[in-house]
Amino acid sequence: MNEFMKKFSLTKPIIQAPMAGGITKPRLASAVSNQGALGSLASGYLTPDLLEQQIKEIFELTDAPFQINVFVPLGLEMPPKDQIKKWKENIPLANQVNQFTSVQEEWDDFYQKIDLILKYKVKACSFTFDLPPEDAVKELKTAGCCLIGTASTVEEALLMEERGMDIVVLQGSEAGGHRGAFLPSKGESAVGLMALIPQAADALSVPVIAAGGMIDHRGVKAALTLGAQGVQIGSAFLICHESNAHPVHKQKILEANEADTKLTTLFSGKEARGIVNKWMEENEQFETQTLPYPYQNTLTKAMRQKASLQNNHDQMSLWAGQGIRSLTEEISVKQLLNQLCQEDIKI
Amino acid sequence: MNEFMKKFSLTKPIIQAPMAGGITKPRLASAVSNQGALGSLASGYLTPDLLEQQIKEIFELTDAPFQINVFVPLGLEMPPKDQIKKWKENIPLANQVNQFTSVQEEWDDFYQKIDLILKYKVKACSFTFDLPPEDAVKELKTAGCCLIGTASTVEEALLMEERGMDIVVLQGSEAGGHRGAFLPSKGESAVGLMALIPQAADALSVPVIAAGGMIDHRGVKAALTLGAQGVQIGSAFLICHESNAHPVHKQKILEANEADTKLTTLFSGKEARGIVNKWMEENEQFETQTLPYPYQNTLTKAMRQKASLQNNHDQMSLWAGQGIRSLTEEISVKQLLNQLCQEDIKI
Repeated sequence: MNEFMKKFSLTKPIIQAPMAGGITKPRLASAVSNQGALGSLASGYLTPDLLEQQIKEIFELTDAPFQINVFVPLGLEMPPKDQIKKWKENIPLANQVNQFTSVQEEWDDFYQKIDLILKYKVKACSFTFDLPPEDAVKELKTAGCCLIGTASTVEEALLMEERGMDIVVLQGSEAGGHRGAFLPSKGESAVGLMALIPQAADALSVPVIAAGGMIDHRGVKAALTLGAQGVQIGSAFLICHESNAHPVHKQKILEANEADTKLTTLFSGKEARGIVNKWMEENEQFETQTLPYPYQNTLTKAMRQKASLQNNHDQMSLWAGQGIRSLTEEISVKQLLNQLCQEDIKI
Repeated sequence: MNEFMKKFSLTKPIIQAPMAGGITKPRLASAVSNQGALGSLASGYLTPDLLEQQIKEIFELTDAPFQINVFVPLGLEMPPKDQIKKWKENIPLANQVNQFTSVQEEWDDFYQKIDLILKYKVKACSFTFDLPPEDAVKELKTAGCCLIGTASTVEEALLMEERGMDIVVLQGSEAGGHRGAFLPSKGESAVGLMALIPQAADALSVPVIAAGGMIDHRGVKAALTLGAQGVQIGSAFLICHESNAHPVHKQKILEANEADTKLTTLFSGKEARGIVNKWMEENEQFETQTLPYPYQNTLTKAMRQKASLQNNHDQMSLWAGQGIRSLTEEISVKQLLNQLCQEDIKI
């Protein structure tokens, strides 16, 4: 049992990725935690009230540790009006948006969620999109909460460690969904795990967790061989029975292959990997002109919601990683965890 | 000893990547082969005469098997004159180019190289850029030459197997230098090895070799765990004493980190991963407008040659993979192979 597993008394070195947008709910997270891996709630798009409801619910379903993931606000100011106008004209239903969440409101939301994590003594809190602010880090650490940061390069991972993270999740280029990259880089900040894990493991003192493209025991063993202490799995949990992902999203993952995904900013303004669909194809030439997160995200919200209601994959965000060729049937969390940890893993 | 190692009586499951452009010469390839791994000559930018010279030379230096890599011509017709004119105006010294190699000349060059491989009974021939033509495959196989194809997706790997390849090299997104992708894909055809290896190993019957971002024994072990029978290493051999790479290229790799590289078409017209430099930065907005290979390559040749002569990294192609943070000193091929196969690898 390594340091990461010891922290949570895990029997499996697996984290279920905190997939926001309604995919991850207490049912999925508790099923994972009850099997000896670390389940996750994703608070990113939840109001504090809804998060509190989910926390209460998960405590009914499991006594085992779980984590809550929080988006760190980027604090980017409103883009120029003409850019907003252009996108409002281009994105279906975007003209319904009358105002955006202010930076202050984003931070209020963030701190209300931190307060809930403290109030309910949640065992672990993970951060995505940026370094968490020092005051939140201090409060959570004082309360004994284990802190998990997300990094896509060694430089980012080192900053996360310096900020007080107890564990750093390394997001490989293979990973589906939003990228956690927060530093400018000279080249591509999306680095394959085969290269990223050993370079980060050598540089950091805290345990690193590998995220991206792994779907079975071979990936888990390879990541541990490369120096990770655990593996974070997204797409493979997304298609589980217990996951609340949209049936069309699940179906698209079951059908898709490894070269069907790409990184796009067209849905949210922040780079994320998803299965290419009509919205991405039709707007490819505008990839570099999207509004920064969360503005683009706010404008595409009604379009995505309508697409969900109509089971229309053309305008949904079909987040998925590069391991999806091997995902061909919906199984249970228990079955998946058995595939991931088929035999004893020596660590 | 697995099937791949048996084919060449190797003691180490390692291929030295065939890096064209003067990096890989008989000295490097023979040093690798003499240590029980598979050395490679890169015929891509050599004339048949120069290739023959290198073949004679390597036979003086080793009795062990080695391979020769051949570029498969893409056969793309000349781009429109106005596009050529635009690039001639933009690329330093490009106005020296009066004519391009014709598609027929490219094929003549290809078949002359195949004839040399047959004449000298070279043990293995690898192909990059496309499926090799059926007549060449047939001739080489009849002569007992082991054929190695390059693929970046499972679909490409399956086509390579179908075409008669005995081994398929899976080029992960981590890999430096030119991408071997040859099929259009819905999303990104650059897939991380962590996802690519198991998906391809499950689909293919012939041995697969992993290429990209690996620099030490952890990467080798992880690749074998994922289902590869061997590992192809580029950047780490490029900086070896025995490599003929430009000293500035070596130095840049020794200094660079994992997020300093990106895929670019600006040097050759074909996507390749290299350390970001001034030429790439200044022309970033033209990435999607480059001429197809080999036309862009022909136009940048004089610029690159002058940059090499002047030790000017701003206009050289600094090909490198994503594992380069860990490469910090020039070592010998023997030292590198000991790092890659530190202990016995059970396969």
